[in-house]
Amino acid sequence: MNKPVELDTSVTAELRALLGERLTVSRGIRDQHGRDESALPNASPQAVVFPESTAEISEIARICTRHRVPMIPFGVGTSLEGHVLAIHGGVTIDMGRMNRILAIHANDLDAVVQAGVTRKSLNEAIRHAGLFFPIDPGADATLGGMASTRASGTNAVRYGTMRENVLALTVVLANGEVIRTAGRSRKSAAGYDLTRLFVGSEGTLGIITEVTIRLQAAPEAMSSAVCPFPSIESAVNTVIQTIQAGIPIARSELLCDLTVRAINKYSKTSYPEQPHLFLEFHGSLAGVKEQANAVQEIANANGGSAFSWTTLAEDRNRMWQARHDAYFACLQLYPGSRAITADVCVPISRLAECIIDTQADVADRPVPTPILGHVGDGNFHCVLLVRPENPEEILEAQKINKRLVKRALAMEGTCTGEHGIGIGKQAYLREELGNAVDVMKNIKTALDPHSLMNPGKIING
Amino acid sequence: MNKPVELDTSVTAELRALLGERLTVSRGIRDQHGRDESALPNASPQAVVFPESTAEISEIARICTRHRVPMIPFGVGTSLEGHVLAIHGGVTIDMGRMNRILAIHANDLDAVVQAGVTRKSLNEAIRHAGLFFPIDPGADATLGGMASTRASGTNAVRYGTMRENVLALTVVLANGEVIRTAGRSRKSAAGYDLTRLFVGSEGTLGIITEVTIRLQAAPEAMSSAVCPFPSIESAVNTVIQTIQAGIPIARSELLCDLTVRAINKYSKTSYPEQPHLFLEFHGSLAGVKEQANAVQEIANANGGSAFSWTTLAEDRNRMWQARHDAYFACLQLYPGSRAITADVCVPISRLAECIIDTQADVADRPVPTPILGHVGDGNFHCVLLVRPENPEEILEAQKINKRLVKRALAMEGTCTGEHGIGIGKQAYLREELGNAVDVMKNIKTALDPHSLMNPGKIING
Repeated sequence: MNKPVELDTSVTAELRALLGERLTVSRGIRDQHGRDESALPNASPQAVVFPESTAEISEIARICTRHRVPMIPFGVGTSLEGHVLAIHGGVTIDMGRMNRILAIHANDLDAVVQAGVTRKSLNEAIRHAGLFFPIDPGADATLGGMASTRASGTNAVRYGTMRENVLALTVVLANGEVIRTAGRSRKSAAGYDLTRLFVGSEGTLGIITEVTIRLQAAPEAMSSAVCPFPSIESAVNTVIQTIQAGIPIARSELLCDLTVRAINKYSKTSYPEQPHLFLEFHGSLAGVKEQANAVQEIANANGGSAFSWTTLAEDRNRMWQARHDAYFACLQLYPGSRAITADVCVPISRLAECIIDTQADVADRPVPTPILGHVGDGNFHCVLLVRPENPEEILEAQKINKRLVKRALAMEGTCTGEHGIGIGKQAYLREELGNAVDVMKNIKTALDPHSLMNPGKIING
Repeated sequence: MNKPVELDTSVTAELRALLGERLTVSRGIRDQHGRDESALPNASPQAVVFPESTAEISEIARICTRHRVPMIPFGVGTSLEGHVLAIHGGVTIDMGRMNRILAIHANDLDAVVQAGVTRKSLNEAIRHAGLFFPIDPGADATLGGMASTRASGTNAVRYGTMRENVLALTVVLANGEVIRTAGRSRKSAAGYDLTRLFVGSEGTLGIITEVTIRLQAAPEAMSSAVCPFPSIESAVNTVIQTIQAGIPIARSELLCDLTVRAINKYSKTSYPEQPHLFLEFHGSLAGVKEQANAVQEIANANGGSAFSWTTLAEDRNRMWQARHDAYFACLQLYPGSRAITADVCVPISRLAECIIDTQADVADRPVPTPILGHVGDGNFHCVLLVRPENPEEILEAQKINKRLVKRALAMEGTCTGEHGIGIGKQAYLREELGNAVDVMKNIKTALDPHSLMNPGKIING
């Protein structure tokens, strides 16, 4: 498994017979599919296929398994831990044509979508029904990709992550069998929770082809606020105290002064270059007001006072788009750079300490190191900018990341809140969960005995 | 595996050396551990052990695996699908002495408890900190048992089930290895979701010895209401419309007229013998009022008007205790009976239809057949009373349950919303999930190759 397999001509012939022009071995397209948003070196597959149905993917899996060819599912390539890199070669399965919304059950607050549907197109399709899907990683990722990495985003503090918002999956297994993990009921105690097993499995146990997701009724009122703080600590403490008071805040995002500088430049905003909270409240008109007042009081006590409020959809969208673009904005702080993005998550009582210690750790770097995060969940990112051609910079960033992970684990946290393990965090996974990783390995072997499903991710071997 | 193994004297000797008097082979104690709240025939283990630590349970597992002796974890024996029955003999591991609360992290809204802690003792221990744990099956079950069956209860519509409220588990595997499935952070994308795999696995993959759970901040205000309705349909439609309107109702319980009669007698209440909703609202003072008004409006439009409100803790507790005792109250409708308890869950848009069809199906039974449920989740129970000594009654009740499951599955629902598969629902599991059950079998074999962990539950073989 260490050397990329050469794609046998008989494999190509079989895939060609199935897919015609929807199989390609063109260099350019293969290279496009050999990279993601991480700083990891590209690794292109031998071929890329563009299936249009679960049945086709099942057939692709049968062919690939018969010939022992790795399979790598690909959404839009925005993962941050190398998930889509074909490090053992093989066939990349581009889900771009699996982009149909199969059913919207407005009365049940759920929808069934093909795995290639992106979160923004889903939200556009359900807006007219007064519904929305809250999970929002920065990029306009696919629902299949989001399920695969157990994605979350800015709304998780209120609505949960993909873990809580996927009701069922259709999955193609290594041998081509198609399973459906659950029905559409809100809850079930029927056997092992296969839905949750495949959510976050990063394509290593099977290929997710359809996703049944929970939808939310759009709240009567939404109100957003931006508030600068004198320090990171005061901003974080505001959020911690809000959570501890049981206030059902919908979004509570921290941006450090550097992040604010980056988005001001990238998104043409003009926030003061101080640590900020971006906040949002969902509920009834009165409820939103009440929540907002309560949080404003907490913020005031922590030194944050210059709240700038908006309830206009247009303003809110601009503000949250700026937040979603923060990662890309940060990349511009150091032209030509890519990022190693730390993604730890800790119990919220330890969050301020963890961020402050991390700031101290990166203070001497010659490169700006923005910190931002979903602080209501205890999850934050440290964007370690590096030039891919500079191995010393990469090594230094990796060392910082390692120290940060150790810091988070010592606080009973995790090495990844939402980006996943992918290629780079396998040693941390072992450090975090010890021999539980052997249980994961057992499961991997049971479901994918030839190690063909996105090999080399999460579990090596 | 079909005949109970005789417990070898060398096994007894090894367990005795480890546990002393905390191993018993007394007939009475074995029989106490060979039954639950289901109507299934008793099946006693060969021995019962009372460990006091994870380390002891690890050692017990090593001994049992070495001698190929089945292990059955036991909480308080209130499961409804035969989960604790020692149908293949073996050693029952009574978790009663594993009843310490190990840590309460009020600032993080979580706690770590041994698996034998019951939900009521937990809630007593955290009340002073302004916290509560919302999952409430009728019985005062253990947290380990509740995790094992993916239990829920009356608060799930607002707070989720054990699936959403377990952060991490300590588990003893068949070979005696001890794993920890996660840290204490709110979210994590670190590898396969072993926490969710063990939640609901009914002791068939390992023995849960510690549970880290999410806690909730007690809301500022709680308000409960009881409301009679002219029909089941009008009551159910009230809840469906409430959910669809996005009102964050905390509890929405349906009781049919027979259930009301039963609890009136059992709990000395005097509700009119009509279908009822028991409702509860959590939030700020103003928020609760607002929610309550909105629901009252919906109820009025559906013919429910005689709301009886209470905000007094004592009244609320009495009302919810009556609801929690409903199952036991129903058993009294037919003296000497046990119950086969149907537990389907469907998408809420199909709920009224499913209940009404079920009522029609049981209308001609000579025995009263109460229907009650957590209708906000789409989950309801049909309490099929039978005398254990009457095989015809049992057969008839099983047929009704079978038709009900088929009805629910045709509506994309599940055969069990919260009670689990246990012994009796394995055929339904296959009907519901088809070849996905083979994936479960693969996982079972990978983690428990000698089939010693609560054998015969969920997966046969």
